[in-house]
Amino acid sequence: MRMRRKKNLDERLRQVRDYIVDIGETTGGYEGIPFSANKLDLVSVFGNDNPVELEIGCGKGQFAVALAKAHPERNLLAVEVNPNVVVLACEKAKAEALPNLRFLALGAEKLGVLLEKGSIARIYLNFSCPFPKKRQAKRRLTHDSFLAIYRDILVDNGEIRQKTDNRILFASSLCAYSRCGFELCDVTLDLHADEPEDNIMTEYETRFVSLGQPIYALKAIKRG
Amino acid sequence: MRMRRKKNLDERLRQVRDYIVDIGETTGGYEGIPFSANKLDLVSVFGNDNPVELEIGCGKGQFAVALAKAHPERNLLAVEVNPNVVVLACEKAKAEALPNLRFLALGAEKLGVLLEKGSIARIYLNFSCPFPKKRQAKRRLTHDSFLAIYRDILVDNGEIRQKTDNRILFASSLCAYSRCGFELCDVTLDLHADEPEDNIMTEYETRFVSLGQPIYALKAIKRG
Repeated sequence: MRMRRKKNLDERLRQVRDYIVDIGETTGGYEGIPFSANKLDLVSVFGNDNPVELEIGCGKGQFAVALAKAHPERNLLAVEVNPNVVVLACEKAKAEALPNLRFLALGAEKLGVLLEKGSIARIYLNFSCPFPKKRQAKRRLTHDSFLAIYRDILVDNGEIRQKTDNRILFASSLCAYSRCGFELCDVTLDLHADEPEDNIMTEYETRFVSLGQPIYALKAIKRG
Repeated sequence: MRMRRKKNLDERLRQVRDYIVDIGETTGGYEGIPFSANKLDLVSVFGNDNPVELEIGCGKGQFAVALAKAHPERNLLAVEVNPNVVVLACEKAKAEALPNLRFLALGAEKLGVLLEKGSIARIYLNFSCPFPKKRQAKRRLTHDSFLAIYRDILVDNGEIRQKTDNRILFASSLCAYSRCGFELCDVTLDLHADEPEDNIMTEYETRFVSLGQPIYALKAIKRG
């Protein structure tokens, strides 16, 4: 399904173009991107060789902006396929003038083509679309096909940090990590009851916590 | 802590002695058992070489009796350390005259000494004592030290099936399986909402389900 584009989207995207990684399209590269054989040069994207982390599905960017502010010693690439939403996230980042946060406007299935093997220190999956029906399982961002991509681009012992309120997604993710060469660590079935350290809330999380719903969370570490 | 013994316990244990595997003590072997180098001969225990499954912590035996009735083609060894409780389970099994259900009155830490490597097809852990405090973590029946024993006695690709209502135990178990060479499969965070096949209820489960509490469940498969 094609999403309806926001009014003035192109103009707003132009205003924040320094925050969107240019991957070969004059439009800002948020749709139908053609890939060359070249991989993205992360040192030139960020102007330094600090470790690079990915948030996949950053939505309106609340988590990404807070993380980048809290950790200037890390670089964060925030990925969001929906241009109507990524523009909001970019505007937040621009308002804070964050040098260590950049956005990729594309689908996660393309990350393996764009990024070098072993180039990413950590991946965040925050409240990904759960696709709870069995026939949609392949679209979950923790389906085996995505985990194969994440394994490729992560450094050895690099980790995925996942949070969700959806029990179907969480349960299927646990099995997928286990099957695909990740070791589970710090699993919690009620993140806020277990008093997490360093937790940065997302938009969804704020809402679910205020409703008293438990948040599920885990780390999945790439093993050899 | 030593448990207070039920009145007439010795006499009641004598009445059901055919259901308790004799491991070298005239008392029925439920306390301070000395082990020889000999392993338990499961073919002579059951009089056949059908696959043997273990329930560790069978309590009053509702699950064990129902499973043994439903699957006469399998043998079930039900393990329970508390003699006050194992006697009740044995009395249930005797009332049904089940030839494929026998009891071991000892602690799980001794199973590796008693059982041959690769002799067990499946292990059930039903509503094990959760020991939710961090300092008690070593006592959980899914602590790494127990999982090492289970790996030893399970056949290749043999599985553990665990059910619990306790989120702390379940979360820590998930990490332990992942760390100790088991692959997670069919994880659910609400067993009864997910409409399980072939589920046999335990005493605890009946109570928790009637209170509307979710039951967590999983399979953990031994991998090479």
